[in-house]
Amino acid sequence: MKMKIKKLGLDAGGKTICILNEKDAKDMGLHPLERVVVTKGKKKVTLLVDTAESFVKRGTIVVYKEATRLINFRNGDVVRVEPRKTLISKKSIDKKIRGEQLDYKDFRAIVDDVIDRDLNDLELASFITALHIHGLTVRESINMSRAMIDTGNKLKFSGTVVDKHSIGGVPGDKTSMMVVPIVAAAGLTIPKTSSRSITSPAGTADRVEAIAPVTLSSREIKKVVKKTKGCLVWGGSVDLAPADDLFIRIEHPLNLDPLLLPSVMSKKKSVGCKYLVIDIPTGRGAKMKTRREANKLAKNFKALGRELGIKVQCAVTPGHQPIGRAMGPALEARELLTCMRNMEEKDLIDKATTIAGMLFKMTGKGDKKTAFEIIKSGKAEKKFREIVKAQGGSDPKPGRIKVGKFIYCIRAKRAGKVKGIHNRDLVEICMAAGTPNDKGAGILLNKKIGERVKKGETLFTIFAEKKHKLNSGIKIAKSKHIFVVL
Amino acid sequence: MKMKIKKLGLDAGGKTICILNEKDAKDMGLHPLERVVVTKGKKKVTLLVDTAESFVKRGTIVVYKEATRLINFRNGDVVRVEPRKTLISKKSIDKKIRGEQLDYKDFRAIVDDVIDRDLNDLELASFITALHIHGLTVRESINMSRAMIDTGNKLKFSGTVVDKHSIGGVPGDKTSMMVVPIVAAAGLTIPKTSSRSITSPAGTADRVEAIAPVTLSSREIKKVVKKTKGCLVWGGSVDLAPADDLFIRIEHPLNLDPLLLPSVMSKKKSVGCKYLVIDIPTGRGAKMKTRREANKLAKNFKALGRELGIKVQCAVTPGHQPIGRAMGPALEARELLTCMRNMEEKDLIDKATTIAGMLFKMTGKGDKKTAFEIIKSGKAEKKFREIVKAQGGSDPKPGRIKVGKFIYCIRAKRAGKVKGIHNRDLVEICMAAGTPNDKGAGILLNKKIGERVKKGETLFTIFAEKKHKLNSGIKIAKSKHIFVVL
Repeated sequence: MKMKIKKLGLDAGGKTICILNEKDAKDMGLHPLERVVVTKGKKKVTLLVDTAESFVKRGTIVVYKEATRLINFRNGDVVRVEPRKTLISKKSIDKKIRGEQLDYKDFRAIVDDVIDRDLNDLELASFITALHIHGLTVRESINMSRAMIDTGNKLKFSGTVVDKHSIGGVPGDKTSMMVVPIVAAAGLTIPKTSSRSITSPAGTADRVEAIAPVTLSSREIKKVVKKTKGCLVWGGSVDLAPADDLFIRIEHPLNLDPLLLPSVMSKKKSVGCKYLVIDIPTGRGAKMKTRREANKLAKNFKALGRELGIKVQCAVTPGHQPIGRAMGPALEARELLTCMRNMEEKDLIDKATTIAGMLFKMTGKGDKKTAFEIIKSGKAEKKFREIVKAQGGSDPKPGRIKVGKFIYCIRAKRAGKVKGIHNRDLVEICMAAGTPNDKGAGILLNKKIGERVKKGETLFTIFAEKKHKLNSGIKIAKSKHIFVVL
Repeated sequence: MKMKIKKLGLDAGGKTICILNEKDAKDMGLHPLERVVVTKGKKKVTLLVDTAESFVKRGTIVVYKEATRLINFRNGDVVRVEPRKTLISKKSIDKKIRGEQLDYKDFRAIVDDVIDRDLNDLELASFITALHIHGLTVRESINMSRAMIDTGNKLKFSGTVVDKHSIGGVPGDKTSMMVVPIVAAAGLTIPKTSSRSITSPAGTADRVEAIAPVTLSSREIKKVVKKTKGCLVWGGSVDLAPADDLFIRIEHPLNLDPLLLPSVMSKKKSVGCKYLVIDIPTGRGAKMKTRREANKLAKNFKALGRELGIKVQCAVTPGHQPIGRAMGPALEARELLTCMRNMEEKDLIDKATTIAGMLFKMTGKGDKKTAFEIIKSGKAEKKFREIVKAQGGSDPKPGRIKVGKFIYCIRAKRAGKVKGIHNRDLVEICMAAGTPNDKGAGILLNKKIGERVKKGETLFTIFAEKKHKLNSGIKIAKSKHIFVVL
C-alpha cells in the first residue's frame, strides 16, 4: 500500500513505531503490536504498528522520531507500506527458550534483526529472560561477542592498547578517571569509552562531562588518543556494538543483565584492546555478594578474553561503601581533581593504583608503586588536564566546578562508630535530588565506615540544583536508616 | 505535577500510553518506557511514558484510547501526574525467573497489577517467558486460577451447568456450535463463551457472528440462557477473567501459552460450571503432536478441575486435517446449518456427538447415541435457531449467508489418493484471503484425507471478498504443496 509520511516529533524510548489509520491497518490484516516494512527508495525499515481512529487520516503513516533516525523520512514522502512476515531470528529465540544452545548464525540473525529494529520489544524481553534463565556457555558468549563485533564499528590505535572496565554497582566510583591518566602517562594507549548512568547517580561519562565534552566522533577520539594516549569519552556515539545499546534498553527496565560478558568484551575487542583489567566490586550492596561469585565471573571473563585474543585479569575490589566521599557528576569531578593533588581519599588512590598497577605488570611497565609515583609526581594530573583539553574542555579548577546551591546536612542521632552504609539508599537520595541530569546534585559523605561520629555531627550532605528536588532527597533520607552507627 | 489532558484517539494495542513533552518528562526524572500515575479525582491509572519534542506542549499529557477506557478522561481535564515507584509484583516475577514457586499472594499481586495496567509489556513478556521455561506446578495453576477468578466477574445460572472447551489448533473446528444446541436441547445448561480468532481463519465467536450478534452483556447472556438453556457468545465483553485477555495480548505475539490451564479453568469456574469436557485435538499440525503429550495435559486439567470443584473429562480428537470442509466465518456457519440437516460431514457429527455424549454420561443424561438422535430428530437445529434468535439474530438460511464473490479453484496436478493435508498452509491462505475480518473469505475443501482425486480435479476453493486478497491467497496456494496425493 502506498502511503504519505507525516512526522510529529514523537519519541517512544527507542521503539520504532508508526501510527496508521485503523481502517488502513485492518485492510492490511494488521493488529497493533504487529509490524510493517516501510520502503522509501532503496531503503527499508521495519516499524511497529499503533493505530488511530481519526487522528491519522487514511493513506497517511505517522512515523516516530526513532524511525527517522534510521531513514531520513520527510513530511509528504510517498512510501510503500507492507505487513512484515515472520522472522528467522524468532526461531533462534525460540531455540534459546527451549534451552538449546545457540551458534554464531543464531546470534548473528538476532543481532542483525535487533539493529534493523525488526525484533519487537516483547520478543527482546522474552529473549533476555530466556538468556538469563538458561545462562550462556563460554562458547555462546564467544559467538555472541563475535556477532556484536562483526556488526559494529572498529577503531584502530597505535601502541600497546590496554583498557579497564568495572562491572559497576558502587556509587561514587570515579576510578576510571584516575586510571586513564596514570596509564596514558606511562606511555600505554588507553582509549576508554564509558556509559552514562542509568540507575546510578553518575556514570563515568556523566562525571567527565562536568568538565569536558564526552560525545566525540570516531575521528575526534582518534585525534585525542593520538595526542594524549588516552581518552575519557561516552561510548554511545561510536557505535562499537550498536546492538548492545538496544539490548540494554530492554535489560535495564527488566533489571536483568545476561549479556554482561559479550557486551563488555565485544567493545574492548572493537578498539583493539590487548590487555584488560576487569574491576569486580564485591560485598554487601554490590552486584557480586561473595568472593566466590566474583571469582566465577572472573574465570568467565578470562576464558572469553583468551578466545578473543585479549589478556584479561580481574580485580575483586571492595563494594560495600562508596569510593571516595562524593556522589553525583560535579561533586565527583571536583573530588577527583582535588584527590589527584592531595591524595587524601585513600580508597580511591588504592583502587586506581591497584588497577593501573595490574596493567603495568601485564605489559612490563612496572607495578602498583609505579602507579602511585605517577600520581604523586603530578604526572597523572597533568595528563588528565591534557586529555580534558584535547576533548575540548577548558582547564578545570576544582573550585570552579558548579555544584548544587541547595544543601542539607543529615546528622547523627547517636554517637559511635560507623559500621555500615546502605549504598542503595544513598543512590535513591541522589536520584531524587536530581542526578544524573542535574550535574550539580548529589551527596558528600562526611563520615565513612570505621570513622567515629558524635551525636549531632553531620553524616552526609545532600546537594541539589532545585529546591523541590532537595526536599524529595531529604524526605527519603529521613525515612531510612542509611548509616549503621554502633 | 498538574497537567492538562489531551485526547487524540490513538490506539496502541492495549498498552496504556501517554505522551509528555520531553522537558516535563525530564523534570520528573522520567525516561521513555517508564511509568506515571495519573490521578483524576479519586481515580488513578498507571500509564507508560512516550515523549515528544514539540508535538505535545509543556503541561499537557496526551492519553491513548486504552487509558480513556480505564478512566473517563476528557479534553482539558486537570490531572495530577507523578512518577510510579517500583512494584511489589515485580518481585514475584523475579521469583519465577529464578525458578522459585509462586503462591497465591504472588499471582494475585501480578494479576492485580496486570488489570491496573501497572506492569508494562516488557515485564509481562519476561513473566510469560519465565512461566513457559519453568512451567507451572498444579499448585501454581490452582493459585493462578484463583487469582483470576477472584479478580473477575461471576455469572450465576440455574440448572446443571456444563461446558466444553477446545484447546484449539484445528482449522474449521465448528464443533461448539453443534455441541451447545445438542446439550441445551437435552435440558442441561451450557453458557458457552468463546474467543475470536487471533491466528486462525475463525474463532467460534467469529463463526457465530456470521449469523447472530455475539457481543452481549452479562445481563443479556443471562436472559438468553434462561430462555434457551444455552448461548454462543464472545467471552471478551463479560470480563470473567479480565487479566486473561491482557496476558493473551502478550502471549500471542510471542507464540507462548504457559497459562493455558488457569486461563481456561478460571473462566469455567466463573460461570459455575460443574461438568466440563476438554477437547484436545492431537496429531501432525495440531498443538499436541502425540497421544502421550495429550494425556499429560488431560491429567493436569483433571487435577486442576478437582481442586476447583469441576468434574473434567478430556477427549483426545483427531487434529491432522480440518473438521468438516469449510474454513472462514461465513463458510463455516453455512456448513454447520447444512450439516445439522443432512448430517453429511461425518467427522463433525462424530466429534460433536462424542463430546456431547461425554457430558451426557457425566450427568446421567444418556450417551453418544442420545446426542446423535438429538441431531437426527431436528431438535438440535431447532435449539440452535432458538439460541440465534434469543441472541438477536434473524432465522438463518444457509443459502442466504453471504460468502466471498471472488473465487478460485486449486486443482490436482496428479491423480491418486489424498494422504495428508497441511493445516498451517490452509490457515495462511485463509488469512491472506481476508479471514477473520472479511467474514465471507475462506476455503472450501473439495477433497479430504482418504479420498481419491483425478488429475485436474479441484482440491479446494479459495473465497475472498476482495480481488487483491484472493490474489494473495492464490499466490500462497501456488507456492506450497498443501495436499499430499499419492
